[in-house]
Amino acid sequence: MTDILTNLRNISGDTYVLSGNDDRKAFDTDVFGDKIGSSLAVVRPANTDEVAAILKLAHETGTPVVPQGGNTGLAGGATPTADTTQIVLSLARMNAIENINPETRTATVQAGVILQNLHDAVAKHDLIFPLIFGARGSCMIGGNISTNAGGSNVLRYGNTRALVLGLEVVLPDGRVMNLMNALYKNNTGYALKDLIIGAEGTLGIITRAVLQLHPAPVARATALLSVASLPAALTLLRKLQDASGGAVEAFEFMPENHMQGYQNLNPDRTLPLETPGAVNILTELGATSQLLARPGDDGRPLIENLLEDVLTDGFENGDILDAAIAQNDSQRDAFWHIRESAYEVATSDGPAIDFDVSVPLDQVETFLDQAAKRLASVVPGMRKTIVSHLGDGNIHYGVLPENNRNGIAPALKTKVMEVVEDLVTELNGSFSAEHGIGTSKRPSMARQKDPVALDAMRAVKAALDPQNIMNPGKVLP
Amino acid sequence: MTDILTNLRNISGDTYVLSGNDDRKAFDTDVFGDKIGSSLAVVRPANTDEVAAILKLAHETGTPVVPQGGNTGLAGGATPTADTTQIVLSLARMNAIENINPETRTATVQAGVILQNLHDAVAKHDLIFPLIFGARGSCMIGGNISTNAGGSNVLRYGNTRALVLGLEVVLPDGRVMNLMNALYKNNTGYALKDLIIGAEGTLGIITRAVLQLHPAPVARATALLSVASLPAALTLLRKLQDASGGAVEAFEFMPENHMQGYQNLNPDRTLPLETPGAVNILTELGATSQLLARPGDDGRPLIENLLEDVLTDGFENGDILDAAIAQNDSQRDAFWHIRESAYEVATSDGPAIDFDVSVPLDQVETFLDQAAKRLASVVPGMRKTIVSHLGDGNIHYGVLPENNRNGIAPALKTKVMEVVEDLVTELNGSFSAEHGIGTSKRPSMARQKDPVALDAMRAVKAALDPQNIMNPGKVLP
Repeated sequence: MTDILTNLRNISGDTYVLSGNDDRKAFDTDVFGDKIGSSLAVVRPANTDEVAAILKLAHETGTPVVPQGGNTGLAGGATPTADTTQIVLSLARMNAIENINPETRTATVQAGVILQNLHDAVAKHDLIFPLIFGARGSCMIGGNISTNAGGSNVLRYGNTRALVLGLEVVLPDGRVMNLMNALYKNNTGYALKDLIIGAEGTLGIITRAVLQLHPAPVARATALLSVASLPAALTLLRKLQDASGGAVEAFEFMPENHMQGYQNLNPDRTLPLETPGAVNILTELGATSQLLARPGDDGRPLIENLLEDVLTDGFENGDILDAAIAQNDSQRDAFWHIRESAYEVATSDGPAIDFDVSVPLDQVETFLDQAAKRLASVVPGMRKTIVSHLGDGNIHYGVLPENNRNGIAPALKTKVMEVVEDLVTELNGSFSAEHGIGTSKRPSMARQKDPVALDAMRAVKAALDPQNIMNPGKVLP
Repeated sequence: MTDILTNLRNISGDTYVLSGNDDRKAFDTDVFGDKIGSSLAVVRPANTDEVAAILKLAHETGTPVVPQGGNTGLAGGATPTADTTQIVLSLARMNAIENINPETRTATVQAGVILQNLHDAVAKHDLIFPLIFGARGSCMIGGNISTNAGGSNVLRYGNTRALVLGLEVVLPDGRVMNLMNALYKNNTGYALKDLIIGAEGTLGIITRAVLQLHPAPVARATALLSVASLPAALTLLRKLQDASGGAVEAFEFMPENHMQGYQNLNPDRTLPLETPGAVNILTELGATSQLLARPGDDGRPLIENLLEDVLTDGFENGDILDAAIAQNDSQRDAFWHIRESAYEVATSDGPAIDFDVSVPLDQVETFLDQAAKRLASVVPGMRKTIVSHLGDGNIHYGVLPENNRNGIAPALKTKVMEVVEDLVTELNGSFSAEHGIGTSKRPSMARQKDPVALDAMRAVKAALDPQNIMNPGKVLP
């Protein structure tokens, strides 16, 4: 033990090896305060060479290593477990944006860059890195990549995997693997980059990345809608995509009780819709074509005219029941506040059994209907919270049993998880759409994942990390 | 031997096991007729169960298996080697388009579907599967996926990997791995789908896939341009992307000697440009927004007005020297004929040493300048053929030594490959952009690929195919 601490101090300096309980606490505890591990030490390397030296040491001593970025993950992947021999390797000091190239629209960054800082830096070039979600002020790029983070505009720009051109990875034995290319075509062997992305630090540690940037939209059109049904919403999405040439940046579903819950929490705010119904949609189009930003006959940008045309059509055929279009940024912010209050709305009624699932786009309604039916007998008096990135089939589904404020019995939780996840599997969906596996979803992996695929994953893990020192106890059951 | 043939016949039926020399010839020979292998037999299974049974047999007997689709690959990946114990497993009979879902814009297909047949089938729904290249009339989807095929509109739609949502794969031991999801978010463990894509059949056999379809463009604008320089072309590309909202479907570079070579081969055709210069660009915009298809003031679609605006701007600042915009489909076809004659132009002057490389977008000019300089002393009197998917940094570069019609000395070929590929590596590029490795680029893998990445690939291969029976002798050096 002492040897390892001494060696870590020799690598990164005394200041950057934290072994006291108080110093380690923030690193040992997950974002909810639910999962509390107990590491031997936290080491905070300054650069790739130090990461490599630490992993070489870990390799030689069989020491388990937990890579950590902003520690904002929702599945426990970045938090140490109870094993007191683990060291947490924090990437937080490796926070340089090394290069932004406006000509190729790429950025080269270290793993510890906070997502919001990258957003701010590329905005100066009228560019965006289109990964956006609540934790952006503290999550780090390395963690985003390790979890293949999603969010609300995957619909347009893809998951994190689609935004990463190159990676530098330190393998479990301390060797540095250089995949740092800014290339759009590169068929030179196996897709190691894609394999490392989403592996949640179990195959190696991401130290640097080349990221794809996109032009910032030059105009936006944002609407809150009450739609006749989920199939009508899917039709509307297609019409918006066709009218705008794929410029739909968000297509978010909120059911009636979300709107009601939001109103209860925000009694001073007036809901933009006079008659929120069963299916409320927040949609936003982002014009990246300058043409769509030009003023139309009414002086408003063409992208807004285009949105209005689709909505008018939807009113006429009965697909749309009510609509509000944001007339300015403060109205837009007010619309988004309703969606972004999902966490507050969901938790205002006490703890829930939470799911982050996805199904094929045309199966969302079936999922919601069937889940309600099958859970009715399992959870008497059940309430539920739902918000959905409907445009990509991702549903955040929360089940609140009666008397949930007094705690939820583990047996009930397990039963509910089985019912919901069995349904998801029947519908050819995913039991973890964007939050990953970490420790929380390992039982689901064991139950739901194709056993042949699980075996293949275990073979890959054993091949690249034969000592099982990289983030052990995560991802694979 | 006899046992294996008997067993194969028991699995797929006598008709579908070919062991005679004449029967095997087309399967044993690559598309150029250069690479001629000698398999034990060709087996043509009807479905996934038969593929699984064949691989189980291969696993039990240690028999090497070469998966084959349309056998149109340019790197030898689908053709057997000299090892006479190999069996070729042809997917050609598994040619069903199982489902096209216009609501979710996805297709479920078997691996043996010919690409053009899928194009035709989805066109009926006003959809496209946007993978397009010369071999589309005979290449098969399974091979496209196995090689992560590219083409000229990767710029807009990505490589094959970006178009595949789900896969069914038979592993080397005959087990079927089910990754057949039509999901946009699915973070349940390692990216096995991405790992199999581009593995050229060395990790298992793709039997079915779920593919992402896209809306067909509702209008197009196509232009042939003479541009002042390659950096000016890159600026132009960005302006076109910004004006159109990323609707650039092709941005192809052809140097002066390509235009001249084309004219020589087609003396009866008039080149659309009066003054082709050093940098000629064929670009095409595809309007997927209905708005961009509406007629402008001059009655032509707005997407064409938009193209004209950017070109006018380019003329004024001197970036563009000459331009022709296609006024109808036959003019468009004539423009594309110049680009699609690349093979005929390149080979009209005898055999070449061919490269399929990519570099970062802003390094194409440096590559061309440096390659010419460094090769001058190596290849006296050198001529070269160049066409480039400039929009994605992919350059098809051919070196023609003096007296090449009498054959090219292997030592010279090796030397030229080293010079060009060393340069590509210096520029952080790829020595195989879209054609893959097969057998042709294995020496390049050994020389140029990051050795740590190579080791990781070898570990993955050994983990998933410990007997090395899947397409041995391909990809890994």
